[in-house]
Amino acid sequence: MEIDFRKGDGLIPVIVQDASTNEVLMMAYMNQEAWKETVRTKKACFWSRSRGKLWLKGETSGHFQEVKEMFLDCDGDTLLLKVDQKGGAACHTGYRSCFHQRYEEEGWKVFGKKIFDPREVYGT
Amino acid sequence: MEIDFRKGDGLIPVIVQDASTNEVLMMAYMNQEAWKETVRTKKACFWSRSRGKLWLKGETSGHFQEVKEMFLDCDGDTLLLKVDQKGGAACHTGYRSCFHQRYEEEGWKVFGKKIFDPREVYGT
Repeated sequence: MEIDFRKGDGLIPVIVQDASTNEVLMMAYMNQEAWKETVRTKKACFWSRSRGKLWLKGETSGHFQEVKEMFLDCDGDTLLLKVDQKGGAACHTGYRSCFHQRYEEEGWKVFGKKIFDPREVYGT
Repeated sequence: MEIDFRKGDGLIPVIVQDASTNEVLMMAYMNQEAWKETVRTKKACFWSRSRGKLWLKGETSGHFQEVKEMFLDCDGDTLLLKVDQKGGAACHTGYRSCFHQRYEEEGWKVFGKKIFDPREVYGT
């Protein structure tokens, strides 16, 4: 079995999960180069679609993701990473998980609390 | 906040997680119609990219996914569903999770065991 980068025009979706709690932290994309960097360094490295370049997660915030285990799905086109999230939060907004909006009858409500203040971490 | 279906040409990736264990079971895609069906029926409904039509998960196998909670990520372009997986396995190959191949130095190795025999469930 090989990773199939063709379906997504060279990119595959990557689910990132907390290795100890199994909480889903975020989803991002890798190209082949990001995958090789991740294997080499054991730190999660993605392809930033908005910036059009390799994105070592944590390069600005210091909140790296140490990769503990990696899984490929049955048809080879999606990855799952189990990581140790440095700094306690994966989301650039300061929440632990990017999935912090919960669907309720009235719409999406914020769920969870901020771990860090993005103004302090990113200085913006 | 609204789901942003535009980035993926009308489709958004959907991560499906076991509501009780937090195990990631699979990833699939929804269009707006699949999303509305999921909200209406509280059973996971996707858009099958290969078949080009709505796909009520479990319609063939009987292994429906009862949706317990739904989360949207920070930029509104990925969904996370927490489900009760009927039949005990989400993967059409009979494994509990589609992510049953683990990366090891020699390559991808099967990890986990089959819950059902796909020949019995799908009759193929």
